[in-house]
Amino acid sequence: MPDGRVASPFASLAPLDIGAMDAVRARLGRLTKPAGSLGQLESLAVQLAGIRGEERATRPLLRRSIVVMAADHGVAARGVSAYPAAVTAQMVANMRTGGAAINVLARMVGADLLVVDLGVAGAVPSRGSAARFRSARIADGTRDLSVEPAMTRAEALAAVDIGREIARELAADDVDVVAVGEMGIGNTTAASALTAALTVLDPGLVTGRGTGLDDLALARKIAVVREALALHRPDPADPCATLAALGGLEIAGLVGLIAELAVARIPVVLDGFITGAAALVAASLVPSLPPRLIAGHRSVEPGHRVQLEALGLRPVLDLDLRLGEASGAILAIPILDAAVRLLAEMATFDSAGVAGASRARPGPHGRPSDADRTGSTALG
Amino acid sequence: MPDGRVASPFASLAPLDIGAMDAVRARLGRLTKPAGSLGQLESLAVQLAGIRGEERATRPLLRRSIVVMAADHGVAARGVSAYPAAVTAQMVANMRTGGAAINVLARMVGADLLVVDLGVAGAVPSRGSAARFRSARIADGTRDLSVEPAMTRAEALAAVDIGREIARELAADDVDVVAVGEMGIGNTTAASALTAALTVLDPGLVTGRGTGLDDLALARKIAVVREALALHRPDPADPCATLAALGGLEIAGLVGLIAELAVARIPVVLDGFITGAAALVAASLVPSLPPRLIAGHRSVEPGHRVQLEALGLRPVLDLDLRLGEASGAILAIPILDAAVRLLAEMATFDSAGVAGASRARPGPHGRPSDADRTGSTALG
Repeated sequence: MPDGRVASPFASLAPLDIGAMDAVRARLGRLTKPAGSLGQLESLAVQLAGIRGEERATRPLLRRSIVVMAADHGVAARGVSAYPAAVTAQMVANMRTGGAAINVLARMVGADLLVVDLGVAGAVPSRGSAARFRSARIADGTRDLSVEPAMTRAEALAAVDIGREIARELAADDVDVVAVGEMGIGNTTAASALTAALTVLDPGLVTGRGTGLDDLALARKIAVVREALALHRPDPADPCATLAALGGLEIAGLVGLIAELAVARIPVVLDGFITGAAALVAASLVPSLPPRLIAGHRSVEPGHRVQLEALGLRPVLDLDLRLGEASGAILAIPILDAAVRLLAEMATFDSAGVAGASRARPGPHGRPSDADRTGSTALG
Repeated sequence: MPDGRVASPFASLAPLDIGAMDAVRARLGRLTKPAGSLGQLESLAVQLAGIRGEERATRPLLRRSIVVMAADHGVAARGVSAYPAAVTAQMVANMRTGGAAINVLARMVGADLLVVDLGVAGAVPSRGSAARFRSARIADGTRDLSVEPAMTRAEALAAVDIGREIARELAADDVDVVAVGEMGIGNTTAASALTAALTVLDPGLVTGRGTGLDDLALARKIAVVREALALHRPDPADPCATLAALGGLEIAGLVGLIAELAVARIPVVLDGFITGAAALVAASLVPSLPPRLIAGHRSVEPGHRVQLEALGLRPVLDLDLRLGEASGAILAIPILDAAVRLLAEMATFDSAGVAGASRARPGPHGRPSDADRTGSTALG
């Protein structure tokens, strides 16, 4: 494209299925419960119907998939993480042998787990079969975003394409829901830089303690983000250049994965701050994207709240998590499945012979009139 | 007892297992994740260990039980609910045939469901085997608490005893966790009256819209609660008399169930506002009770927030639910199970060969020192 952006590949995003959403709202009103009493589960059931379409609105979320993208970050050399960069490869290995949090949660919810190496520095030990693993290495980690662009545009686009390819494979497998996550020492710094750039907010508002920085290290991390923004002067109207300058290989992979899953009408459950940054980039490329996304949880990272507001998403869970690895996204899956199952399996007032809510006011002595007690329903 | 209270039956509540809690905290620090990064899941794992004891601290919550107690309320005649009183029996029948929200959620999490009739007005149709059902009727509903005591002390204590008996049966069945809930048209009025009485707060602060009252009906409901408090002048130091005057048969059953489950060291997951009122009564009888309780969710009812603060409980979920039937409690079970499974199944830094967090500061040029990169762990 003349301006070098990657907006057009995602332009075919279908509108939400408004008819399906209306039908779900109507059915929710007939189920044997007070109107609206399932709260956020009702809005999730409506949203999922809009994403998936009418014929899938009541299909339980049985085929569950988790995709964790991993890569290293040159900026880790600036001391912005509580952990050494070697932990990225070690944790990917841990996911392959089954010892990471994500493995436990994947087993618990019965989800397929795919771990993708988009640029982990050094070798990932090849042992272990607890997760499917794909080597799709684009570079040996990113360069230090505080002194040069983290990636070339070609590298970023290659990572986006790998994410898109995986999304198409998941769509071919007919999965019902995908939880997305990441692993990469230093990637909260990249996510902070992307979030500050795309929301045009001060880095101090969107940079947090990550894996557990103390006050001094946090101040250093904020300074690093400021340096990066001063150096690259990112244009929020050019999300692709912003992604290349400030992002990460796993973040770019997530951008493609998230956007292409939306194209395929598969609900995407975001995890925390890193996947939120990827969603911000994706939403900049595809403005109609956010209603296709589900925020699995609200992270402790201060910038995550900013991202959720920018995307207009209400998180399902709020458990002070800050682990990554898609952990908060996976924990939301049983809640999403409950929303669909309640819609599909509950009886209606008519079918169960249950009386609906009364519209009539009580009589002068405060007693309901006889009409209130005959069981006629006002919920249709 | 000379003063007529029922405190002593629960006096044998064992202390929380502090040793188990310390051991869990230590293990959480060795797992392959940043310290504290599992947030509320970590505090839940610690709490569950304290309740269950060391030998069960890592046992998944496999045997799940749901107990829903149902009864009618004389105060429903005052027009305090959007639904006619007949709905209590109809919804109990719906639970027996499998069409209620609770049936769907019980199936989803693989929980045994027991529905107990403690005083549903009129006959509950006997059809259906979707839930175990027990008829333990003490009265044909309560009397109108705004004109006379809802129950005699003997009725309230009989209902408490049924709850205790069920708790002992569940303990004999070796269940791992119990979600408690209720059904009873009019019972948010009783719960509001109990909450106002026991927290000594104005009824306007703890009375909400229940199943969906409009402004006029809400004002009437608040007035009814005020009348009841003015009539009975409940003494918060006498929870048993307060329960009899203002409570309900299902609430009294829940008081006994909750307290006796705590004696049996079985984690109790509370649902919303009605079970919260029962927990307040139980905590008045057994002051060391609250740390044994888990708040499954935060209800929309304004008085529920007050109850949770009084009990010192942080809810697991916050989904704007206001359904009852233990629905919010059941939805929390996968989260609780995740907390235990992560504790039990994740690898440790040592076992997985993953480097821990660095204690050292970066060198003068911002690079971590070599010592940070050798993989020695500071997390023990």
